[in-house]
Amino acid sequence: MVSLQELGERELIRNILSIIRRPPGLGPCDDSALMPPMDGDVVACTDSVSFERHFPKGMTYKEFGWTAAAVNISDLAAMGAEPVGLLAAVMMPGDLDERPVYDMMAGMDRCAETFGAHIYGGDTKPGQGAIACTAIGSLRGRRPMLRSGARPGDAVAVTGSLGSAAAGFFSMDRGITGDVPLSPLMTPVPRVDEGAALSGSGAVTSCIDLSDGLAEGARSICGASNVGMDIHTEFLPEGDGVETVHSELGITKEEMMLYWGGDYELLFTFSKDKIGSLYDRDVEFSIIGKVTEGDAPHINRGGTRTVMGNGRY
Amino acid sequence: MVSLQELGERELIRNILSIIRRPPGLGPCDDSALMPPMDGDVVACTDSVSFERHFPKGMTYKEFGWTAAAVNISDLAAMGAEPVGLLAAVMMPGDLDERPVYDMMAGMDRCAETFGAHIYGGDTKPGQGAIACTAIGSLRGRRPMLRSGARPGDAVAVTGSLGSAAAGFFSMDRGITGDVPLSPLMTPVPRVDEGAALSGSGAVTSCIDLSDGLAEGARSICGASNVGMDIHTEFLPEGDGVETVHSELGITKEEMMLYWGGDYELLFTFSKDKIGSLYDRDVEFSIIGKVTEGDAPHINRGGTRTVMGNGRY
Repeated sequence: MVSLQELGERELIRNILSIIRRPPGLGPCDDSALMPPMDGDVVACTDSVSFERHFPKGMTYKEFGWTAAAVNISDLAAMGAEPVGLLAAVMMPGDLDERPVYDMMAGMDRCAETFGAHIYGGDTKPGQGAIACTAIGSLRGRRPMLRSGARPGDAVAVTGSLGSAAAGFFSMDRGITGDVPLSPLMTPVPRVDEGAALSGSGAVTSCIDLSDGLAEGARSICGASNVGMDIHTEFLPEGDGVETVHSELGITKEEMMLYWGGDYELLFTFSKDKIGSLYDRDVEFSIIGKVTEGDAPHINRGGTRTVMGNGRY
Repeated sequence: MVSLQELGERELIRNILSIIRRPPGLGPCDDSALMPPMDGDVVACTDSVSFERHFPKGMTYKEFGWTAAAVNISDLAAMGAEPVGLLAAVMMPGDLDERPVYDMMAGMDRCAETFGAHIYGGDTKPGQGAIACTAIGSLRGRRPMLRSGARPGDAVAVTGSLGSAAAGFFSMDRGITGDVPLSPLMTPVPRVDEGAALSGSGAVTSCIDLSDGLAEGARSICGASNVGMDIHTEFLPEGDGVETVHSELGITKEEMMLYWGGDYELLFTFSKDKIGSLYDRDVEFSIIGKVTEGDAPHINRGGTRTVMGNGRY
């Protein structure tokens, strides 16, 4: 095992290419990558993750690589797009061993594979320990879901459940005895199929992913749509592990479900009169509130309405 | 003027959006960006630049931002593609003032504008001072130029001239009295039009950009094409400033023209019997050698042939 410095960029790239799956187009070997045609509009996003901020205790390098891909694939999913290709700008300390880099790339490739995509290219440079991943995808003819289309009267809903990533984090960070699943934190699963189904339904008026937490997502939709929101706490779908962390550490469930990021669910609004077309799509979701006049999301606790804050952590 | 930490991500992004041109599609505001259809295959690449390695003495933040875009646009140009959109993952220290970030983004946008592209999205995170830019572009129906098509007997050629970026670097770094142009180093101009013309000519058998230097580029083509090369030093087109730096600092011209990166010219090979179609395209280039059997580039100095090394710096 040698350090990246000793190994050199050329050798490092050759080894990475022997680990990841070869993409169908003209993949990582030339100045740029050649990806297949996209059927209309191209959807793209970039997001970076770093050792310092996105590498919780207990995470493996493979899971870090998975996460670098997942945050971006989730951003595509929030628009209703499916990933086709990833690019990875890898910035790692020169004294890091080579093995962790291969593990990160294998994790990234595994996440891409799960959603039918490939790593098409990348770049390796000395740095502090960060991956800036880019995801490029296609709507396959569907209309994109935006943050800006919510209207007063729409229902507010969320896919899956909330708070499991936070519960996983607290359970690793503070060590508790109860059983808390870690996969929501370590290998988050972007809601690609759900995003495609939601955008295909024609019912959804706005959508965002919850990687920054539900409160932050709700604020983004309210800001972009010029609306308010009422979120009813009793309707929030509680994720696995939330109860255990709450009872063992005293952290409130709202803290984990509303203010903590890392859940890769989709928050969306839809026209109530089109709910039938949502049910037709077989997407699992919970209605958690409604869109109102105003400009900010509110929490409704059994009829008492307060502006949604930032949480305590 | 406040630091990024004090300002917060939301405000920072809002300010950046007021500085860069708004793209024609659905630009930086949603989870992902919606870019126009690409006419067939999509070409994409990513490359990161950092304060530590890509910020020579005398460079401004605007020029650093320009460079972040230019290195990627140059990678598209090397394939014959034209840029459509850029994404920017910006990783900056929290104690940095906000102004430099706006300057970087303005510089990046200026570079995009020069080549008919827009910044479509991005991400800001705390970090050590790096930008991972992604460029997405289109071949507009042309065939891509690769590194792997060179054949023995082909001519080796280069656009523009060589060594000016190195000359600019040495002149800033060591301070000399003679006149040396700095723009080749500070605002390198990717050869987008030339790349498009070369790929459209049907004569070119391989191509690479020279951001890592001519020796490195030649090695990449030789490796990918399984060929050797003879580069004749007397044919190398000498860039502005090379003579001055050579005479004042004693740095050899070969060092600046062959081994130093930062020139954004294109190195390419072509079938000699199709040279007419190259001349028809009005691209300025110099023939500097020929493709041979073998597996490595050689330097030919007046008939004496030696394997191309790595330079002294």
